[in-house]
Amino acid sequence: MRIEVINIGSELLFDRLNTNINLISKILLSYGFKISKCIIVGDKKQDIKDAFLNSFKNSDMVIITGGLGPTFDDLTRESIADALNKKLIFDEKLWENIEEKFKKRNIIPPEINKRQAYIIEGSKIIENKNGIAPGIIIHENGKLILIFPGPPNELKPMLEETIQSIEKNLKREKVITKIYSIIGIPESEVQTRLNDLIDKMKENLIILAHPNLIEIVLMLHENQKDVFLEVEDIIKERFGINYLGVNVSSIPEIIGEILRKKKLHLAIAESCTGGLACKLITDIPGSSDYFIGGFITYSNILKKKILKVPKTILRKYGAVSEQTAIYMAKNAKKYGKCDISLSFTGIAGPKGGTSEKPVGLVWIGVCYKKILFAKKFIFSGDRNTIRERAVYKGFELLREILTKNE
Amino acid sequence: MRIEVINIGSELLFDRLNTNINLISKILLSYGFKISKCIIVGDKKQDIKDAFLNSFKNSDMVIITGGLGPTFDDLTRESIADALNKKLIFDEKLWENIEEKFKKRNIIPPEINKRQAYIIEGSKIIENKNGIAPGIIIHENGKLILIFPGPPNELKPMLEETIQSIEKNLKREKVITKIYSIIGIPESEVQTRLNDLIDKMKENLIILAHPNLIEIVLMLHENQKDVFLEVEDIIKERFGINYLGVNVSSIPEIIGEILRKKKLHLAIAESCTGGLACKLITDIPGSSDYFIGGFITYSNILKKKILKVPKTILRKYGAVSEQTAIYMAKNAKKYGKCDISLSFTGIAGPKGGTSEKPVGLVWIGVCYKKILFAKKFIFSGDRNTIRERAVYKGFELLREILTKNE
Repeated sequence: MRIEVINIGSELLFDRLNTNINLISKILLSYGFKISKCIIVGDKKQDIKDAFLNSFKNSDMVIITGGLGPTFDDLTRESIADALNKKLIFDEKLWENIEEKFKKRNIIPPEINKRQAYIIEGSKIIENKNGIAPGIIIHENGKLILIFPGPPNELKPMLEETIQSIEKNLKREKVITKIYSIIGIPESEVQTRLNDLIDKMKENLIILAHPNLIEIVLMLHENQKDVFLEVEDIIKERFGINYLGVNVSSIPEIIGEILRKKKLHLAIAESCTGGLACKLITDIPGSSDYFIGGFITYSNILKKKILKVPKTILRKYGAVSEQTAIYMAKNAKKYGKCDISLSFTGIAGPKGGTSEKPVGLVWIGVCYKKILFAKKFIFSGDRNTIRERAVYKGFELLREILTKNE
Repeated sequence: MRIEVINIGSELLFDRLNTNINLISKILLSYGFKISKCIIVGDKKQDIKDAFLNSFKNSDMVIITGGLGPTFDDLTRESIADALNKKLIFDEKLWENIEEKFKKRNIIPPEINKRQAYIIEGSKIIENKNGIAPGIIIHENGKLILIFPGPPNELKPMLEETIQSIEKNLKREKVITKIYSIIGIPESEVQTRLNDLIDKMKENLIILAHPNLIEIVLMLHENQKDVFLEVEDIIKERFGINYLGVNVSSIPEIIGEILRKKKLHLAIAESCTGGLACKLITDIPGSSDYFIGGFITYSNILKKKILKVPKTILRKYGAVSEQTAIYMAKNAKKYGKCDISLSFTGIAGPKGGTSEKPVGLVWIGVCYKKILFAKKFIFSGDRNTIRERAVYKGFELLREILTKNE
């Protein structure tokens, strides 16, 4: 089964449009579908038609995103209908549905949005719970055309639901993908330790380096299930505590699961990371089960006032110091009345570095039972990269301590 | 001049390949070139040939990246040579050059890398200072084909140098882009208010809806500079306080500028948003000039203990209530010893909603001078969308209050 994806949007936005390709590719891979080709085209009717007809000819399924908005430059409906020699028909019920969505937001339904109530003759509608424009399913010549709105938060659930509901009827090699995640080891080292496996599985095994994680992606035919177990055993053996697990979703989620299982509560004190650690922890639904809260003591005033870091410590060692990180962790646990805490204080840059305390220096503190320490790191990259690396390194420390101190 | 871009790489990596499209699009736009179409294809000879021949037929310049590596699945050289009916010729000098690069790294030049010393008959080489594989320039039928290696750190300088050296010979309109940002008004309303402008400038004006911002993108020939000013005047007049400015970078940055100018300090109290507001404020370098810190009172314990929300209030009205939001804002300002504060308390979901307090309900509180209130919102979408919408709505309130209360 051959799948092609077409992403439609302004030519001025090609540098941003392709997050949708990321998203679609990930979702399809998780169902064992590979995409053969992706196309990004501008909001021009002829370009959209050409791209579509070409993909429609060469593949079994075409997934299209974008260009379903209400404005003059949203041309997907018209272009696809045109390419297939089909009519656009105004759907009263759909319009009522759209009107209702506006009324819920206390907005008078704008006349212009009527364009979104036109459906392609013979097509079915995919409901859009997060936005106005519905998606479209078309069966044509034994092929499948799926059209979704561009905003990722609308596209994602709609695509997932659609694939789930149709996947059984789709012909494909049943391929299963598993992702083994490694933390705390650089890509080249992961590569070296797996050289024999990589040689053996060439086409099916890929090593992906993310800023905070290495993923070993293995794609196999469904009748090779034993191989997955073999590979997992090898990875477990070679990476020990650095092996996070198979198909794990995210590090904050893993930490959440450990905390929930152990019935522990976490508090976080942040300075340079400015709320990022708390944000990532609370991204996870149900995090209130184990997350007490955070102290974003960005200024020294709050470090003193809220986390009671002594004036003398701040004066003698500075806000970015082992001692401050330790006080932050200790008192976050104390004032959060909880079991374990994490603290971050550092220099995220781009300014504020000195030769003694350069940009990228971050002290990360942990307090758990009798454990209380802070560790020094120097991260490279821009402000956001440094903040992100610091937070994930903190999560790594947290996981290690929780796993080792059973 | 029509440009198409082809990105070649493993089908398992489509979710990452397109960073190159970002990069190429940005670099070309900075020279005033628009890209008409981007294609991402897998490492399959027939797919690469088809994509190339199609782009070559329809455009004046084709930019290709990826597939120049040494391994069996790097097929770009062969495929393009084949498509153009040209030979691949082994280049002794190029091989010496490659050998030298390896020797500098103390590596014996691997035999496999000889593949990278083959050049397409009649082509010119583009030097690669950051890697092994050279780039390729081909002039054919009055058209231009540029081929670059995939790794962004190699591609970027090579593309920039190449475009710089050839741009004078390329026909194109010199184009300038400006972006006017609108906050607090839905896309369709922006559209309606600008109908006349949109009619007049169709191809050059685009309205972009982001979750928290509408952008009016205007692209004009460089000799039309007056038009930019005219358009800005019209936008200012029609959108008043909802107009954020031209080429502004982000709302947290705008808020930062206002606070810095007014010498005010901000504190933020967050419950359901869990640190996101603090994170976005501290994304901005130099935010320590105006951001005191945050209180992530995710649990009721911290709401009581840190922000002194009275037990009776929590019991009578609940954590998600006008009263709690007001206490959170008031005491964040008080304990942060600062000038202005913002608070968020709500139900981000997916669970925890009731008929009275549904998922999406968020109370946002503000405290500034004698102003102290909380406003109720019901946001739609998934957990992340609700959190994001709440935070940006809070920033919108903050900006309005700061702008109105001079």
